[in-house]
Amino acid sequence: MIISRKRLAHIVFESEDAASKRFDVALLIAILGSVTITILDSVSSLHNAYGSVFYVLEWSFTILFTIEYFLRVWLSRRTMGYVLSFYGLVDLLAILPTYISFFVVNSHFLAVVRALRFLRVLRVLKLGRYLREAQVLTEALYNSRLKIQVFLGSVVTVVLVMGTVMFFIEGPESGFTSIPTAMYWAIVTLTTVGYGDISPATPLGQFMASLIMLLGYAIIAVPTGIVTSEINASQKRQLDQQRGCHTCNAKGHDEDAYHCKYCGTRL
Amino acid sequence: MIISRKRLAHIVFESEDAASKRFDVALLIAILGSVTITILDSVSSLHNAYGSVFYVLEWSFTILFTIEYFLRVWLSRRTMGYVLSFYGLVDLLAILPTYISFFVVNSHFLAVVRALRFLRVLRVLKLGRYLREAQVLTEALYNSRLKIQVFLGSVVTVVLVMGTVMFFIEGPESGFTSIPTAMYWAIVTLTTVGYGDISPATPLGQFMASLIMLLGYAIIAVPTGIVTSEINASQKRQLDQQRGCHTCNAKGHDEDAYHCKYCGTRL
Amino acid sequence: MIISRKRLAHIVFESEDAASKRFDVALLIAILGSVTITILDSVSSLHNAYGSVFYVLEWSFTILFTIEYFLRVWLSRRTMGYVLSFYGLVDLLAILPTYISFFVVNSHFLAVVRALRFLRVLRVLKLGRYLREAQVLTEALYNSRLKIQVFLGSVVTVVLVMGTVMFFIEGPESGFTSIPTAMYWAIVTLTTVGYGDISPATPLGQFMASLIMLLGYAIIAVPTGIVTSEINASQKRQLDQQRGCHTCNAKGHDEDAYHCKYCGTRL
Amino acid sequence: MIISRKRLAHIVFESEDAASKRFDVALLIAILGSVTITILDSVSSLHNAYGSVFYVLEWSFTILFTIEYFLRVWLSRRTMGYVLSFYGLVDLLAILPTYISFFVVNSHFLAVVRALRFLRVLRVLKLGRYLREAQVLTEALYNSRLKIQVFLGSVVTVVLVMGTVMFFIEGPESGFTSIPTAMYWAIVTLTTVGYGDISPATPLGQFMASLIMLLGYAIIAVPTGIVTSEINASQKRQLDQQRGCHTCNAKGHDEDAYHCKYCGTRL
Repeated sequence: MIISRKRLAHIVFESEDAASKRFDVALLIAILGSVTITILDSVSSLHNAYGSVFYVLEWSFTILFTIEYFLRVWLSRRTMGYVLSFYGLVDLLAILPTYISFFVVNSHFLAVVRALRFLRVLRVLKLGRYLREAQVLTEALYNSRLKIQVFLGSVVTVVLVMGTVMFFIEGPESGFTSIPTAMYWAIVTLTTVGYGDISPATPLGQFMASLIMLLGYAIIAVPTGIVTSEINASQKRQLDQQRGCHTCNAKGHDEDAYHCKYCGTRL
Repeated sequence: MIISRKRLAHIVFESEDAASKRFDVALLIAILGSVTITILDSVSSLHNAYGSVFYVLEWSFTILFTIEYFLRVWLSRRTMGYVLSFYGLVDLLAILPTYISFFVVNSHFLAVVRALRFLRVLRVLKLGRYLREAQVLTEALYNSRLKIQVFLGSVVTVVLVMGTVMFFIEGPESGFTSIPTAMYWAIVTLTTVGYGDISPATPLGQFMASLIMLLGYAIIAVPTGIVTSEINASQKRQLDQQRGCHTCNAKGHDEDAYHCKYCGTRL
Repeated sequence: MIISRKRLAHIVFESEDAASKRFDVALLIAILGSVTITILDSVSSLHNAYGSVFYVLEWSFTILFTIEYFLRVWLSRRTMGYVLSFYGLVDLLAILPTYISFFVVNSHFLAVVRALRFLRVLRVLKLGRYLREAQVLTEALYNSRLKIQVFLGSVVTVVLVMGTVMFFIEGPESGFTSIPTAMYWAIVTLTTVGYGDISPATPLGQFMASLIMLLGYAIIAVPTGIVTSEINASQKRQLDQQRGCHTCNAKGHDEDAYHCKYCGTRL
Repeated sequence: MIISRKRLAHIVFESEDAASKRFDVALLIAILGSVTITILDSVSSLHNAYGSVFYVLEWSFTILFTIEYFLRVWLSRRTMGYVLSFYGLVDLLAILPTYISFFVVNSHFLAVVRALRFLRVLRVLKLGRYLREAQVLTEALYNSRLKIQVFLGSVVTVVLVMGTVMFFIEGPESGFTSIPTAMYWAIVTLTTVGYGDISPATPLGQFMASLIMLLGYAIIAVPTGIVTSEINASQKRQLDQQRGCHTCNAKGHDEDAYHCKYCGTRL
């Protein structure tokens, strides 16, 4: 069976008819399967038992993704446009490590090979193509970038000042061995993660830590507030785009409205 | 005293008059009592001291629930409809384990018997009948399923990528023995639980962990935002149902509406 | 200087003129001082060094609060009304422990005496009189009691089911010694506190724990959503109570508005 | 090249033309560089290896900031106004420690010198000049100061009462050595940080701790609610400032307004 190049491009790039949907599902399964194998391969007991099976499967997936990559290169209207695009680079990154690890035979670079093997996990980024909703989130983040900057600036300042203060009060005995370590502790505390690998031992240190926790809680409430009001705003924007009254020009009518709620004109 | 089948069905299935309310309360007490006994029985000191009391009580509750089950089967208009419904299965699950554990006399299956004994805790699901408010929450969850999918997708991607990165930076010495373990650590960190059973020890690992915490805090703020705007929306919907139009009797007008949105009458 | 009973009642119960304000401030200082001493007395090194000073100060505060109590009893219009009121009981509770501990000379009741000594910390509740803003919060809690019930019901169910499941998967080796302990762990995890005194050790347990964390995060987002929408609603209620237009009856005008924003009538 | 005093004052105090922007950027780099060096100097391995390099760089930055300080003093219209202003004191604090540590040659004051060395980290406060957005946050905090007071009052009361209760139930064996320590634990738990350095060991203590966590979660949801509604309000205020009346030129009309709220003109 021979299919035209145009038909093939349609199957690869669109997702409307049955054939292209089947292509998308196959790709999705290949990505998830490949990532799962990389994860399982990192468990040493599984690596010892099924290492060779994983190796064969890994090469199968890599060859499949290689075919997909060259199909996309060949079928793109502007070849370099695809190759240099974000997903073009992600697609390349998804196949390169396996080939490089094959050519690095020198045992001195074993660590590199090992690292390359796990880089394959980044194939999960290929899934980004199917996450159209993510764009809304990205836009929301972009809209509130100024607030996020102020928030991050405040967090960094609090972390810096509090880290330095705790480095003095507690000192190396309680694990506050340097300002960077104390700053790491301050972030662990501010974000309420609280591992407990480093924790204040002196009464003054515990008092200061309590202040940081309460102060930090107020600061850390900010991202939630930002996200909530962004979601509210985007919902309102959707509502506003619905329908306008041609008499009084008012917007924001309910979906089931027959008359303008302000002037009574039939919509 | 003999009561008609219809009257009995009313007592069992409705909760309007005194008799059916008393039936509901008795069932509620039986469920809570039975679950409490299962919980207490799991404490080894209490099991050793009062094991036989628990055993007798457990059988009493089971016989009671068995009678309830057969009553419901007999009184249902469509017997199979009830047996195969969600609460029909829950009711069956609430009595089966005790009977099975009675017939498994072979000591090889002790673990199974023990497991069955604690399965009884699921009787708490029988309470679901009385939680009518829960439907609102379920609806809210259903309405925001798209946002929840994007959120969970982002969390899984961040957890996967960060888990792999930390598995490299820290390695087995700090407890990051495999990618799944590192992913477990990433979830513990992202959700700000922070047990501290696994925590980064190298400066680079601590720096990356700090980034994950701050990044994670932004991502994790999303469910709060979703829930808040859903609650706001549901409150607005309740408010909207209050005002009615005196011409067409329609409800659901906005607070600032002057005209009925269906017929245009001045409100 | 002799002052009338009426004047004294005014000083004790009101807080308008200079004398009654001075009475309030003196009482406030006495409460804070007394609570501070109780706290400091619990630190064994301070108790050993300054125990006798604390003892004298404690008796001074107690005598002061006793005088205040009998003043209030004498000056109240309805004596029993005050004695049996919430603050009447709190005021009694604030002086009783010290007297009882004085009469318990028998060394067998030392633990009781010690307990009574620290009960004095509850004197902080006397401060409630000055927290008029707290009423708004109490009202907000009352308004959302139905949502809080559903929320707590869901939390208890999740904690019960997940506690039982983890008790099976992990068992006593990882610290999950009984269902109550496992439920304690589930609450520590759901609320993202995460002490780490008990944490899952098996892969399956860590997977289940990850699910609980993500599930729990969604559930735990609910109180924030409830509180946020309650605050929004109370702010809106304040706004709505401001001014209405006498032509179109519309409310919600800004504080600085001269004309109705809907019909243009001069307000 | 000689430039007038007026021109210099413009470069130092304004940030409009190229020269003054370059001055700002140079100062920014100097601040960040100086703080970075102070942080790195606190890591003992880096201090041993590069201590002398840090010493030279530190003096260079100090001399630079000294020149900046005297420039500002000389160029200010009201000299004492600058010296006693917030940023005047911060600028002085940024140079003093290095000079004092130079004159303290007596080895008995080594701890003081060490402390002074790290005080330099506070130079980060000089950055405040560039954070104009922070004013919005400060204003939001000021607007909700009453709510924050009630919130902090509730937290302190809960922490005090719960700390005392847990001090009794658990006692010194589980780490609850005094009421202040128990209060530190209560804050660590309420803010969901949960280090795990102190955690309840008795069943009753674990039950009480569970109650505190759930209670605490409700209380701690309040700051998020406050921040969210403040952000919403400030966004609304920004939006309100957009639409203007073409008769009286007033701004700040609501989105749904038909008439100018000041002069009644149809918008």
